Amino acid sequence: MKTIKIYDTTLRDGTQSEEINLSVQDKIRITKKLDELGVHYVEGGWPGSNSTDKEFFEEIKNYHLENSKVSAFGSTHNTRLQPENDPNLAALVECGAKVVTLFGKTWDFHATDALGVSLDRNLELISNSIGFMRKHVEELFFDAEHFFDGFKANPDFSLACLKAAHDAGADVLVLCDTNGGSLPEEVAEACKTVLSNIPGSKVGIHTHNDCELAVANSLAAVKSGAIQIQGTMNGYGERCGNANLCSIIPNLELKMGYNTIGKENLSMLKSISNYITEIANLRPFLRQPYVGAAAFAHKGGVHVSAVMKDSKSYEHIDPILVGNDRRVLLSDLSGKSNIIYKAHQFGYDLQKDDPAVKTILADIKERESIGFEYSAAEASFELLFFKAMGWSKRYFEFINFFVVDAKRKEDTEPFSEATVIVKVHGQENHTAASGDGPVNALDKALRKALEPFYPSLKNVRLMDFKVRVLNGAIRDSSGTSSNVRLLIESTDGKTQWTTMGVSNNIIEASWQALVDSINYKLFKDDPQKWPSSM
Amino acid sequence: MKTIKIYDTTLRDGTQSEEINLSVQDKIRITKKLDELGVHYVEGGWPGSNSTDKEFFEEIKNYHLENSKVSAFGSTHNTRLQPENDPNLAALVECGAKVVTLFGKTWDFHATDALGVSLDRNLELISNSIGFMRKHVEELFFDAEHFFDGFKANPDFSLACLKAAHDAGADVLVLCDTNGGSLPEEVAEACKTVLSNIPGSKVGIHTHNDCELAVANSLAAVKSGAIQIQGTMNGYGERCGNANLCSIIPNLELKMGYNTIGKENLSMLKSISNYITEIANLRPFLRQPYVGAAAFAHKGGVHVSAVMKDSKSYEHIDPILVGNDRRVLLSDLSGKSNIIYKAHQFGYDLQKDDPAVKTILADIKERESIGFEYSAAEASFELLFFKAMGWSKRYFEFINFFVVDAKRKEDTEPFSEATVIVKVHGQENHTAASGDGPVNALDKALRKALEPFYPSLKNVRLMDFKVRVLNGAIRDSSGTSSNVRLLIESTDGKTQWTTMGVSNNIIEASWQALVDSINYKLFKDDPQKWPSSM
Repeated sequence: MKTIKIYDTTLRDGTQSEEINLSVQDKIRITKKLDELGVHYVEGGWPGSNSTDKEFFEEIKNYHLENSKVSAFGSTHNTRLQPENDPNLAALVECGAKVVTLFGKTWDFHATDALGVSLDRNLELISNSIGFMRKHVEELFFDAEHFFDGFKANPDFSLACLKAAHDAGADVLVLCDTNGGSLPEEVAEACKTVLSNIPGSKVGIHTHNDCELAVANSLAAVKSGAIQIQGTMNGYGERCGNANLCSIIPNLELKMGYNTIGKENLSMLKSISNYITEIANLRPFLRQPYVGAAAFAHKGGVHVSAVMKDSKSYEHIDPILVGNDRRVLLSDLSGKSNIIYKAHQFGYDLQKDDPAVKTILADIKERESIGFEYSAAEASFELLFFKAMGWSKRYFEFINFFVVDAKRKEDTEPFSEATVIVKVHGQENHTAASGDGPVNALDKALRKALEPFYPSLKNVRLMDFKVRVLNGAIRDSSGTSSNVRLLIESTDGKTQWTTMGVSNNIIEASWQALVDSINYKLFKDDPQKWPSSM
Repeated sequence: MKTIKIYDTTLRDGTQSEEINLSVQDKIRITKKLDELGVHYVEGGWPGSNSTDKEFFEEIKNYHLENSKVSAFGSTHNTRLQPENDPNLAALVECGAKVVTLFGKTWDFHATDALGVSLDRNLELISNSIGFMRKHVEELFFDAEHFFDGFKANPDFSLACLKAAHDAGADVLVLCDTNGGSLPEEVAEACKTVLSNIPGSKVGIHTHNDCELAVANSLAAVKSGAIQIQGTMNGYGERCGNANLCSIIPNLELKMGYNTIGKENLSMLKSISNYITEIANLRPFLRQPYVGAAAFAHKGGVHVSAVMKDSKSYEHIDPILVGNDRRVLLSDLSGKSNIIYKAHQFGYDLQKDDPAVKTILADIKERESIGFEYSAAEASFELLFFKAMGWSKRYFEFINFFVVDAKRKEDTEPFSEATVIVKVHGQENHTAASGDGPVNALDKALRKALEPFYPSLKNVRLMDFKVRVLNGAIRDSSGTSSNVRLLIESTDGKTQWTTMGVSNNIIEASWQALVDSINYKLFKDDPQKWPSSM
């Protein structure tokens, strides 16, 4: 089986995304994960351009990587200097990376207008720079910036640039669709031309997603002989992003018969994709192919019952292969099959004609009409489900809360304080706590009241919360304020769960989600959640 | 120039997305916009499956559409019935749509295992159903469910299904990659085989994005002879979504020489894409090709200076063609060129060596390090910019605020009240207001204090707010709470602006964003924003 080398540039080109800023430690953590995943190259950055990247190359020397080679990125030398005294090239040598990718101009217009050099001088810059770096590294790649645009405008010149790089010792000629404007057939054609015009050359591909074709363009290049693909995890990158390795890798492995990171490693794809999303502090893209939360989610009743019979009915691959899961969504559009599937997950063998199924569907419909969305908060759904199944135990009774935020001086944070009265086992508890904001104060006061009775709550931490105004506007034209939906993610160190509140008052929505979170934890831990008769 | 017909199924297949639920009125509004955009067909829904869709077809009769034909979706008849007494087909006839798309099984496994009929009976179902509908509609399309999977498993049977539909009178055979697992070369090959095996047939294409190849697959089908493309706006749809018309249309029009909605209409693409995002109540996808906010955004300093020289340097098309804009991003990664570009937008001719440029870059860097992100809140940036340029006017002075949320009964919303003391023109104003939650109460109390002095604030409305916990967790392992970033979108009925607050206290973050929003409005309206000496 032919191996296609995976060259990850999340840490360099990926950070050109407007949403992403990574610290040195973030970059180290991501490198370790990419090594675990088994990508062949991790491009750490451009040591000549900024201090974070320089530090990264220092720091990464302290780590042993199993599978990945760390590579450094830089440009051909400054036209007013010699390679020997160019600080950019010197930074590449000093950073100690064994693999280097040097980019150079291969579009005549860019050479003359952006760089301001003659076409011949451009060839020299490439040749000199590659020749200089060759002595210092084990592997050397030439990144042909704007190759496809250049090839359209002046094919002879673009090919001459590649030939200069090849002759000077570049191991792989990486053809870049820098502006992302190329079509698969153009990419395929150009790759073939390069390989036939420069005997003995090897070709790589680096695409951007401006036409929503970056994955297709990468695959087209492979079919035309490319042996290296450069891309980023989750397709992060400038503008519309780079070619998404999370789609390219499984397409090559599962659909096209190539080897990349190997089938065993493929099962880590989703978790490592998620990990990088977290480190980059971004929202995961729900509909992301292969690794997204919706990639194997089924809503329509017809689909759900078919998938339950035979998964290949509506799934192109088994989600386990990429470490993803099948999800069955609750929604007012969905049918009884979904409820039965969920019940099964909760350990119940519900029949289609069980009256509970109807009750649950009606509950969901009613609550979704005011903004609840159970597919996003499965713990809240689980509570709803068990209530419909007759669970009626209450761990505490609400009496009262009172929250104050007071600010008395500019440039200080307000003081936030909450008091709570709840009744537990017949006993009223009145507690107070201050916090970083009203929700934190409320959370602390509530736990203070409950922890003496339920010590396991001490391990529960709020991980994240999200707030979203429904109906697209805070207030409609009649002045009525919209509901907000608030999601809270909690953990007890072992599992995580998400609960939800909906109200036009954010404090009330927070309260609902907090109460659900605590009830969920107590419910899951409770050996006596059902009356003894059941 | 060859015309490819655009068949939009946002209202039907798009609503299978777990995030989307549309009311009848939402569907009407979207239909009118799609008509304006000039898509050829708008699939309104499946009248036989639910009451919302049924109502839609009743309601849409009251509107005159200029460009689009409304189509209805349904399945071949129930195997236990005749077409004449099948309620699903009857609903299609009754709904009054002049265009109908009927789907049928074309994968042997689905016919036998999901539907439970013999292969011959499946051919009859198709033939009978198409034959029956033919008499009732002007245009009739056969949607070949799972065609590509079926064609791989049993090509003779799949082709026989298509032939049955064609012979019974289907105008177009729409080949569906229902599970989204096909590759472009497979799609191309299959389209060619169908066209050569069924003389006189016309082929359409309907793909899903499970391999991140839906756009490429649609284009491959067109290159192989397909004349109709089915897809959704923004690629909404079940799992990873449908083929994204917002990418397919400009690819066909601008890159491949086909006519679809026409070049003039193309300039509405971004605004109509955004409109549908709003109606669907979803977050826009920043990196969306062609129409996303980042599609023509430039961050790297090198790119920015090159684009300012000649836009084709780093843009594959002129953003105006699809109604989008170039954006230059502020970020600590970005260089002086970005600041100069922004200054130019604000009417300033700053030079690279102006000390203000350095001040602004340092301000941005410092504030971004604690969580500010100016690319998301350009109004807050504009204020920062003008402060660095020496603007120091203050419209009011903060003295004090106090916010209370009290809840005394379960199943009621808390009572929220705020008091504010601010000084305007030397005069202290103490106001109070209640509201739907603390932020609303604070906003109302602040306006009460300011509106007597600044009547234009009466027109300012908060449109939306977003809250995001930074650093990926509410509290780090040392127990320190993370900052939240809160964005507020405001409008005065003419323009919209976004401001930002960052704090570990959500009330403080709201306050910062509110104050910025009001200051921005007053600043923009103020003829005397500068001391007379300037």
